Amino acid sequence: MDSKKPLIAITVGDPAGIGPEIIVGAWTETVVHDWCRPVVVGHPEVLRRAVDLWQTGLSVVEVDDPAAAQPSLDVIPCVPCGSSDVLEVPPGMLDARAGQAAYDAVVAAARLALDHRVDAIVTAPLQKEALHRAGHHYPGHTELLAQLCGVNDFAMMLYLGPSDDVLSSAGLAVVHVTLHTALKNVFAQLNEDAILAKSRLAHHFMTRLMRPSVKKTSHGRSASGLFPSDSRPRIGVCSLNPHGGEGGLFGDEELRIIRPAVERGLAEGLRLEGPLPTDTLMLQAKDGRFDAVVAMYHDQGHIALKLLGMHRAVNVTLGLPIIRTSVAHGTAFDIAWQRQAETGSMIEALRVASRLAAARCEEGEERTDEYKV
Amino acid sequence: MDSKKPLIAITVGDPAGIGPEIIVGAWTETVVHDWCRPVVVGHPEVLRRAVDLWQTGLSVVEVDDPAAAQPSLDVIPCVPCGSSDVLEVPPGMLDARAGQAAYDAVVAAARLALDHRVDAIVTAPLQKEALHRAGHHYPGHTELLAQLCGVNDFAMMLYLGPSDDVLSSAGLAVVHVTLHTALKNVFAQLNEDAILAKSRLAHHFMTRLMRPSVKKTSHGRSASGLFPSDSRPRIGVCSLNPHGGEGGLFGDEELRIIRPAVERGLAEGLRLEGPLPTDTLMLQAKDGRFDAVVAMYHDQGHIALKLLGMHRAVNVTLGLPIIRTSVAHGTAFDIAWQRQAETGSMIEALRVASRLAAARCEEGEERTDEYKV
Repeated sequence: MDSKKPLIAITVGDPAGIGPEIIVGAWTETVVHDWCRPVVVGHPEVLRRAVDLWQTGLSVVEVDDPAAAQPSLDVIPCVPCGSSDVLEVPPGMLDARAGQAAYDAVVAAARLALDHRVDAIVTAPLQKEALHRAGHHYPGHTELLAQLCGVNDFAMMLYLGPSDDVLSSAGLAVVHVTLHTALKNVFAQLNEDAILAKSRLAHHFMTRLMRPSVKKTSHGRSASGLFPSDSRPRIGVCSLNPHGGEGGLFGDEELRIIRPAVERGLAEGLRLEGPLPTDTLMLQAKDGRFDAVVAMYHDQGHIALKLLGMHRAVNVTLGLPIIRTSVAHGTAFDIAWQRQAETGSMIEALRVASRLAAARCEEGEERTDEYKV
Repeated sequence: MDSKKPLIAITVGDPAGIGPEIIVGAWTETVVHDWCRPVVVGHPEVLRRAVDLWQTGLSVVEVDDPAAAQPSLDVIPCVPCGSSDVLEVPPGMLDARAGQAAYDAVVAAARLALDHRVDAIVTAPLQKEALHRAGHHYPGHTELLAQLCGVNDFAMMLYLGPSDDVLSSAGLAVVHVTLHTALKNVFAQLNEDAILAKSRLAHHFMTRLMRPSVKKTSHGRSASGLFPSDSRPRIGVCSLNPHGGEGGLFGDEELRIIRPAVERGLAEGLRLEGPLPTDTLMLQAKDGRFDAVVAMYHDQGHIALKLLGMHRAVNVTLGLPIIRTSVAHGTAFDIAWQRQAETGSMIEALRVASRLAAARCEEGEERTDEYKV
């Protein structure tokens, strides 16, 4: 066991959904154990049932202290939490007891992270309505975690790892300036500050993800300088209107709002390009010309993301004091506990959380070095 | 030479652009000659230069009457038109003489089609600004052709043939209810009639394209009835808002406008589904669940189209008395006359025009049969 690997708490999610089975499915991937030391937070019996479903022969071992966990391809350490009531919930059913179990696991995992007892958390999907039935009225994971962490300013980012459809070697992050609102409301919500704020988030996230590993150099830090040959993430900023507004002919938001926001971002050192016609920009992003995209509204980002491989997408909450990634899909009650669920997003969520935790750890080491000098 | 094959006039486009070279490039594809008998309309010397560029050894033979043309893998018949002034225009340059040459070829080809001397026309790209400099103030090909044909009610459709990225065996047609306008103006332009009109266009186009060939049956007509196992094209109708409006939470256009339009379409026999959340719909279209998509605004359709293979896309003008397809790209002055241009869109434009012309011919034969009965 390599204690240098990040220790990651995976929440079990809604036990009636696909969470438990995708955790067990991902566990059987050797690379996961190369990246991190995972432990699961949830009811151990739920996890054992998922092990039985896959017939993997894995042992679920209860642990109180994640630091003492010895995860391997054969052993799933589980920090037990939640009531055994949940064992009565049938698969694929909306149930307050399952909502409570999901809630308990998130709270327990967030506390472990806030207490620095784990390096990151990865969440399996919960079901919003079940959460509400259990009396916890949050729109979703993100808002619950923000409250647990005492944070008001946070954002959701979607990330796709590199693939045949995403040629940037760093993958592709997509942030949305406006998200869950009617298209008609986008115009009032769009402003320079919001575009700049999302551009900064994209920059900081991808900078950390793309950070060359300190361990790769003999001197304990990157030998290649602050921005070796401009290694800053390349961020494409979408237009709002067709053809990028065609010079004002098809709308003026590009000239009036987006371009000034891009100029402010450039002035503070972000490597932005735009506003670009969005259809062209998304094709360029696919072809590897950008590491991140700032989308102006939901569908603009999501049409491209789904076509480029949403089943592999990872949801990352930015602005928290802890590292948190998540699968980008839901509980999929219709196929839950049938061994049909795709594990790709869970594996990617573990990879990204591991990478972010390692980068944060290296940043800490570098700071310590500097203080010593 | 099979006189049953559709006779297709290809316009040379703006001679300073990639038109001539993509015509010659497409000519060397054997399948093109299986589909149709192509002839080119333009200055023969321009075409000869493109032949020299490719070093194909093709002969350009001038013909006055397309019916007398004997196109082959070795011979390009050319209906000569336009002034020799154009031969002075350097490659990749905006020039009124090139705009005039492009105009002359479109006018000549449209007349051939209107006089039933060719079965369809396929246009290589022209450059709008060069057209304007030559004194012809049309926004583009589509409007010029509409005027030549005396038509007011027409529409542009984009079509992608079947591929690894478009699994419907009929390919995928995309029509836009609103197109070249600011996103802010979409709300005023969106109405039931417009959505229904575009849905009908998509239906009629794909019905013709998907039509089982009459020749495949021994009785000279399809043996499989009007709608064999519901062979009507499957048309997905986009939502305007994220998550399809989430039941009115994120906008009401789905409930107030799009759903009523879909219901009217269903009542008149169109096989519509929607409004569906657009990000999901586009993924389903990719996966072959739809043959056509009705998009509410430009980027909604174009983001998906570009990611699914815009370089292969074909532009089809609907509502004309003649069959006209076109490449979906522009003159690409930056790479013109350098043998870098992709010929895929020209080849597809020829395939689609051939298919539409054959279907129209078969429809005519069927009608004649019925009258005889």
